[in-house]
Amino acid sequence: MKKGRVFSGARPTGRQHIGNYLGAIQNYVGLQQTYECIYCIVDVHALTTLEETHLLKENTREMMLDWLAAGLDPEKSILFIQSHVPEVMELHTLLSMVTPLSWLLRVATFKEKVKAQPHNVNYGLVGYPVLMTADIVLYKADTVPVGEDQLPHLEVAREIVRRFHYLFGPTFPEPKAKLTTFPLVLGLDGERKMSKSYDNDIELAASPEETTQRIMTAFTDPARQYRSDPGHPEVCNVYSLHHFYNREQLVEIAEQCRGAAIGCVDCKQLLADAVNEALVPFRERRAEIAQRTGHVDEVLADGARRAHAIAKETIKEVKEKMGLP
Amino acid sequence: MKKGRVFSGARPTGRQHIGNYLGAIQNYVGLQQTYECIYCIVDVHALTTLEETHLLKENTREMMLDWLAAGLDPEKSILFIQSHVPEVMELHTLLSMVTPLSWLLRVATFKEKVKAQPHNVNYGLVGYPVLMTADIVLYKADTVPVGEDQLPHLEVAREIVRRFHYLFGPTFPEPKAKLTTFPLVLGLDGERKMSKSYDNDIELAASPEETTQRIMTAFTDPARQYRSDPGHPEVCNVYSLHHFYNREQLVEIAEQCRGAAIGCVDCKQLLADAVNEALVPFRERRAEIAQRTGHVDEVLADGARRAHAIAKETIKEVKEKMGLP
Repeated sequence: MKKGRVFSGARPTGRQHIGNYLGAIQNYVGLQQTYECIYCIVDVHALTTLEETHLLKENTREMMLDWLAAGLDPEKSILFIQSHVPEVMELHTLLSMVTPLSWLLRVATFKEKVKAQPHNVNYGLVGYPVLMTADIVLYKADTVPVGEDQLPHLEVAREIVRRFHYLFGPTFPEPKAKLTTFPLVLGLDGERKMSKSYDNDIELAASPEETTQRIMTAFTDPARQYRSDPGHPEVCNVYSLHHFYNREQLVEIAEQCRGAAIGCVDCKQLLADAVNEALVPFRERRAEIAQRTGHVDEVLADGARRAHAIAKETIKEVKEKMGLP
Repeated sequence: MKKGRVFSGARPTGRQHIGNYLGAIQNYVGLQQTYECIYCIVDVHALTTLEETHLLKENTREMMLDWLAAGLDPEKSILFIQSHVPEVMELHTLLSMVTPLSWLLRVATFKEKVKAQPHNVNYGLVGYPVLMTADIVLYKADTVPVGEDQLPHLEVAREIVRRFHYLFGPTFPEPKAKLTTFPLVLGLDGERKMSKSYDNDIELAASPEETTQRIMTAFTDPARQYRSDPGHPEVCNVYSLHHFYNREQLVEIAEQCRGAAIGCVDCKQLLADAVNEALVPFRERRAEIAQRTGHVDEVLADGARRAHAIAKETIKEVKEKMGLP
């Protein structure tokens, strides 16, 4: 007996990095045990900013490969691509009719986007929370794993649901946030969150050699200029990554760094070895899945079919409630 | 060989009145000879203002009955209900991603709506021109019959098409306006355009008795207080309606009015007789169609099927062009 139905969507950002894994994916995998899970690559959301649309296909495929290799299980969860169930766009349009414009213009992330890209504020960008709501309620999900920063979006979703109910009667579960603490994983620059767009990431699917090479470029404690200088692990980015991959040697590494017993190159090598070791099973599974011709397509087709079966019923109910002929 | 493909949509306002007929419907009927025509009852558009959604079903059916009785021919044209081809909402969502918000906020009719119903400005209302564009281009229509007041909307549609082409390559015909002069048909109050919402209309499907009764309530020349007063047909609302239904006796009626040879009641009776006579064939056809069980549903299902066949191809092309996986 599962606790409820989880929905979560992620933009198709292509090959996933260890920040994605330690943040979202690991959590997705865990939730499969206790919830009925629906995980979606939200390609339509990616259009709200019109970035790199020529890469959508490849990015989606690579990301799904990573998801599967990381343990998202199509036997347990519904894994699919947003646009493969077009009812979500239908519901987006229908929900747009009950969503006050003012609610959307007040959303903080919208305001930030307007500042960041004033030349590229499209109608669809304003509707981001409406599309997100459509995603969740189309599948009648009751639980949405979110970080604290995503809470305002979910609050809009709940408001839209309440307004729909006020106008047309109860239809959807009011989705609850499953507040999740995502660890902050810094990128190789040691300054910003690990992200593909900052080119400061370590891809899960990279080869061991590439991984070592990338880690060797990482910024470390800036005060440690020479091998013989004592280091300050508490401000060092590489040390912060050891938290995830060398949990048992943390004290030892810190001591060796402070005492200049190891240099930064040694320390990075330790990290690279640990990351590579941790990723062995992932990489094996990924290679195995990648060589099964048509497997990802089959998984996606099956996911779309199962998602569609739910979506079809919901959209029928919504249209009836709204009085459409 | 037809001249092109016409698309036009009309909101489901229920039983049509003679203003609708003399304005839009007559024109629709005529265009069937020279164009491939797609006529749609736009129920989703009706949701942008959330008015009387409980009447949508009945209003749609009554309107389609009127259309069929008035000569819209399902053998010649595609007649259907907007929401029966859900691809239009899918395309609306996709086009929303390429439509600058600023274009929509500048549309005059949007600004008017905001003034008229500040408490009811939903996200979907802003997107009205996007949904209209989706309607037209989903069917790759090249020609849209519009009155002068609708030209700005069509201009937005053309801009959206151009922007889509700029981003993703040529896909749609750029829809051209077929500028149409719609006669101004005043309502029975003699002040405002004939409209169901002002309750100043004469329904096509009314019985002859109801029609006469309605016309008897019409405002006439306010300066003519007594039967013996001379009238002023040039300012009389009933006289303006004689233009459409008593074209050949216009001079005679004007003279009799000015000379007080006929009173307003006589004049209204003349109009009622003429309207009733003109509507005989319409009413016979309507009664005949209404009694054919399931006929309207069959027409609508067939229309949806034919519209869907076009829509399916367009949406496939659009998704490919946009790079969706």
